[in-house]
Amino acid sequence: MEIEQQFLHSTRYASDMSDEPSDQQKGLPQPPLELPFDDSMPIIDLPDPKTLVIPSIDLRTAIDRRHSIRLYRDEALTLEELSFLLWCTQGVKAVTARPCTLRTVPSGGARHAFETYLMVRAVTGLQPGIYRFLAIEHKLQLVKAGTQTLQDVRHLCGDQKMVELSAVTFIWTAVPYRMIWRYRQRAYRGLFLDAGHVCQNLYLAAEPIDCGVCGINAFFDDEFNAYLGFDPEQQFVIYCASLGKKPTGIHK
Amino acid sequence: MEIEQQFLHSTRYASDMSDEPSDQQKGLPQPPLELPFDDSMPIIDLPDPKTLVIPSIDLRTAIDRRHSIRLYRDEALTLEELSFLLWCTQGVKAVTARPCTLRTVPSGGARHAFETYLMVRAVTGLQPGIYRFLAIEHKLQLVKAGTQTLQDVRHLCGDQKMVELSAVTFIWTAVPYRMIWRYRQRAYRGLFLDAGHVCQNLYLAAEPIDCGVCGINAFFDDEFNAYLGFDPEQQFVIYCASLGKKPTGIHK
Repeated sequence: MEIEQQFLHSTRYASDMSDEPSDQQKGLPQPPLELPFDDSMPIIDLPDPKTLVIPSIDLRTAIDRRHSIRLYRDEALTLEELSFLLWCTQGVKAVTARPCTLRTVPSGGARHAFETYLMVRAVTGLQPGIYRFLAIEHKLQLVKAGTQTLQDVRHLCGDQKMVELSAVTFIWTAVPYRMIWRYRQRAYRGLFLDAGHVCQNLYLAAEPIDCGVCGINAFFDDEFNAYLGFDPEQQFVIYCASLGKKPTGIHK
Repeated sequence: MEIEQQFLHSTRYASDMSDEPSDQQKGLPQPPLELPFDDSMPIIDLPDPKTLVIPSIDLRTAIDRRHSIRLYRDEALTLEELSFLLWCTQGVKAVTARPCTLRTVPSGGARHAFETYLMVRAVTGLQPGIYRFLAIEHKLQLVKAGTQTLQDVRHLCGDQKMVELSAVTFIWTAVPYRMIWRYRQRAYRGLFLDAGHVCQNLYLAAEPIDCGVCGINAFFDDEFNAYLGFDPEQQFVIYCASLGKKPTGIHK
């Protein structure tokens, strides 16, 4: 476990570190709040999160009821439900003058270093394939179409069957420089902490729409990054989660 | 950023790794579900989470309303409110036959590698000081008494004023072997992801009791671990969060 203890050491925060300025302190420009997107691929509107009608659920009930669910019934999500889940996990409430985004999840220094991708198997109105969520626009963009993508992502997620059964599998990717610009070496810890914040909101947001979730840390990093065309120093898959309607008989 | 990219590489999951068994696969005994506690220090009962009366709040309202809050009004929490927060962040719903704990938060492989400590400044019925939460027993144990602890923890949390203003500051610590036993080098990622799950539930659970939270990643690791008497290969501070009643004028 040597390298991991080295990581903890090299990402430590200490009172004698003020002599190593961050890129922000050096006055370097802040990276963009989201990655650019390619106008040649289809962009899909999502229902406005403000007007969505989602059943009410008490917070404590949602917390108590939540457990990881790996089997799903074969039923599509509506686009409204997907819009709600994306809102609760990465929804942009405001873009401030700094500029930074204020979202439905916390992020150290409001860095919000994620781009969300979706493996869509069964969502009404969407063809199967991989999509990117454009958080500021609250829209989707098609990245890769076709049912083969489901087998690919299942394999990339450690060949776990829950991906194949899921209506949607969330694929959270980190753009590390967005966090490093402000926090230097400490950034990498913040990225993983933030990914946990996001996934917990997905777990809870699934409850009122009768869905279950299973977080996935067992994915093949190198293959997954290559599959999505990422240079891992610029962008890497950090966490995934499968989601689908709860099987019959699981408490509502 | 070399060491951090090395960390990502050394903690990667890959399809050709099955030749390196985990301690679990080697048949080594599972570490205990929680650290032992010392009977010589006072143990304090907490109100039973099942019977707590906490105002209801809709999940979506809690998610939409949450933002990081660093200023608190000077008002104590009740022991009921603290019990609720501890339940929502690490509450043990069951101990299974495996054995493992099922909690109000997800953890990869139900490893639940955390021990929660609290810097208590203002909770009715508790003297100021540092406490440990005994999750399986749902009790508190005094670790270090006295008001000086507040100045100490403020300093250890990057000298941030929100700690001094908080009613309680949560200090989550990781016992890495509990996760390593099953997941080998991948464990360190899971620890940070799990800490994010926990803190997000704290953010949300604060809402119905009119509290605000600020996650703290800027703490002095080496000093904090030494202060709590930890060997960081065995146990280390992984994340903190200050919490207190929202200042007057912040939306309820």
